[in-house]
Amino acid sequence: MTTFVYRTQLRLKDTDATGVMYFSEQFKFALEAFEEFLKERGFALKELLASSFLLPVVHAKADYFAPMQVGDLLEVALYVEKIGCSSIVLHYLFSDPNRGIEVGRAEVVHVAVDRLTRKKIPIPERLRAIL
Amino acid sequence: MTTFVYRTQLRLKDTDATGVMYFSEQFKFALEAFEEFLKERGFALKELLASSFLLPVVHAKADYFAPMQVGDLLEVALYVEKIGCSSIVLHYLFSDPNRGIEVGRAEVVHVAVDRLTRKKIPIPERLRAIL
Amino acid sequence: MTTFVYRTQLRLKDTDATGVMYFSEQFKFALEAFEEFLKERGFALKELLASSFLLPVVHAKADYFAPMQVGDLLEVALYVEKIGCSSIVLHYLFSDPNRGIEVGRAEVVHVAVDRLTRKKIPIPERLRAIL
Amino acid sequence: MTTFVYRTQLRLKDTDATGVMYFSEQFKFALEAFEEFLKERGFALKELLASSFLLPVVHAKADYFAPMQVGDLLEVALYVEKIGCSSIVLHYLFSDPNRGIEVGRAEVVHVAVDRLTRKKIPIPERLRAIL
Repeated sequence: MTTFVYRTQLRLKDTDATGVMYFSEQFKFALEAFEEFLKERGFALKELLASSFLLPVVHAKADYFAPMQVGDLLEVALYVEKIGCSSIVLHYLFSDPNRGIEVGRAEVVHVAVDRLTRKKIPIPERLRAIL
Repeated sequence: MTTFVYRTQLRLKDTDATGVMYFSEQFKFALEAFEEFLKERGFALKELLASSFLLPVVHAKADYFAPMQVGDLLEVALYVEKIGCSSIVLHYLFSDPNRGIEVGRAEVVHVAVDRLTRKKIPIPERLRAIL
Repeated sequence: MTTFVYRTQLRLKDTDATGVMYFSEQFKFALEAFEEFLKERGFALKELLASSFLLPVVHAKADYFAPMQVGDLLEVALYVEKIGCSSIVLHYLFSDPNRGIEVGRAEVVHVAVDRLTRKKIPIPERLRAIL
Repeated sequence: MTTFVYRTQLRLKDTDATGVMYFSEQFKFALEAFEEFLKERGFALKELLASSFLLPVVHAKADYFAPMQVGDLLEVALYVEKIGCSSIVLHYLFSDPNRGIEVGRAEVVHVAVDRLTRKKIPIPERLRAIL
């Protein structure tokens, strides 16, 4: 469905003493891509944080195909896989354009909840329109 | 089926502006539990890092059941689910002993690789004995 | 003056591809020690976060004497150096009890501000009593 | 002296439950600016990590003038303040171009050390030429 591409690179802070990316940082890059996607569509995260709902993650999974080293470019392709009543399923494909390889993929499921009660709510119309 | 329990707590650094744990930090706590488990069995990570093999993560997934706030206690139960030829499947259950609830779970799959070639190798005997 | 000792250890997540601790993590350990200190004195950070004031950092500095590797124990000694009208000056000494060496030190200055206006306020009595 | 400008923005991961940037992240942005500066001058960090020397931080300090929220733009101006025999003193000025304000500043001192012995060495000529 909708596709968005976000580009970044691996920084020293994202690596660990094994010399490559600390595995969970890949999820951080996924969320950064989502932040950038929302911003480009006119719904900055700062605004979302000030709204009456939140989008916590309820499920996340990732595969890792190749190690990433400091300075490696990272291209994150975001796909809106499914929009349910209260949930959004996002797919991410991570590749290194310099090496021409896929380095990983991820799926992250968010649920819309009321900020105060933290109960599930339908995805607000404004967000649904963007996705 | 081996079980190990690791206790920690959520620090300010683990939270974000939504007021609760940044989702990928749960994976960090899983890896900390594994580090502590290996250490208790006499195989400190520092030693592993100086050995001829590494244990990169090739697959990771998590579910989130309840938000965690700063200061919340976190109990991580580690289960060695499966030991294959080259891979290890670890399960984690996260709970908050104060609130008496499960807050999440995770599965992390590691593969043994040769440090230099990064090719898959059988899990070294010393590690297999520990697991 | 007041002293408090906090013990932790360096995790893989705290290191980078140079093989040792990423420098700014030392500040994270300082803040963890302060969190633990407040908690021990009966003023959990969660409670502080729900109060009418905040304690943002306005100045921070650190020296690094020796590299820290994954698994190294870290002992953080916290000294309340000075309590001004609105500010608190905290000193930290970091040492590795196994190696018997000092590995670094830090100074962090917090200022009490009103949560909503973010204007400087006198340090609340309850916090002053603890320090 | 030499000046370099690096632009980035504050991500959710860089904030904490107080709603603004976790203080030590400012140092991460400083190091990112330095990584980008070296890269632009043709000395990628990946190459440096494969060389015979390292550039650990021995001293770091920062001031914080204004809180940063998720999505805020961050402009980091890097100044090479001093190049000694073995050390480099870097100054950083952080500003938010949207709000037109300075949000902080930092000083980071690196020392060139031999990778294996970790003893101080003169700054390698190649790096000196770049700075």
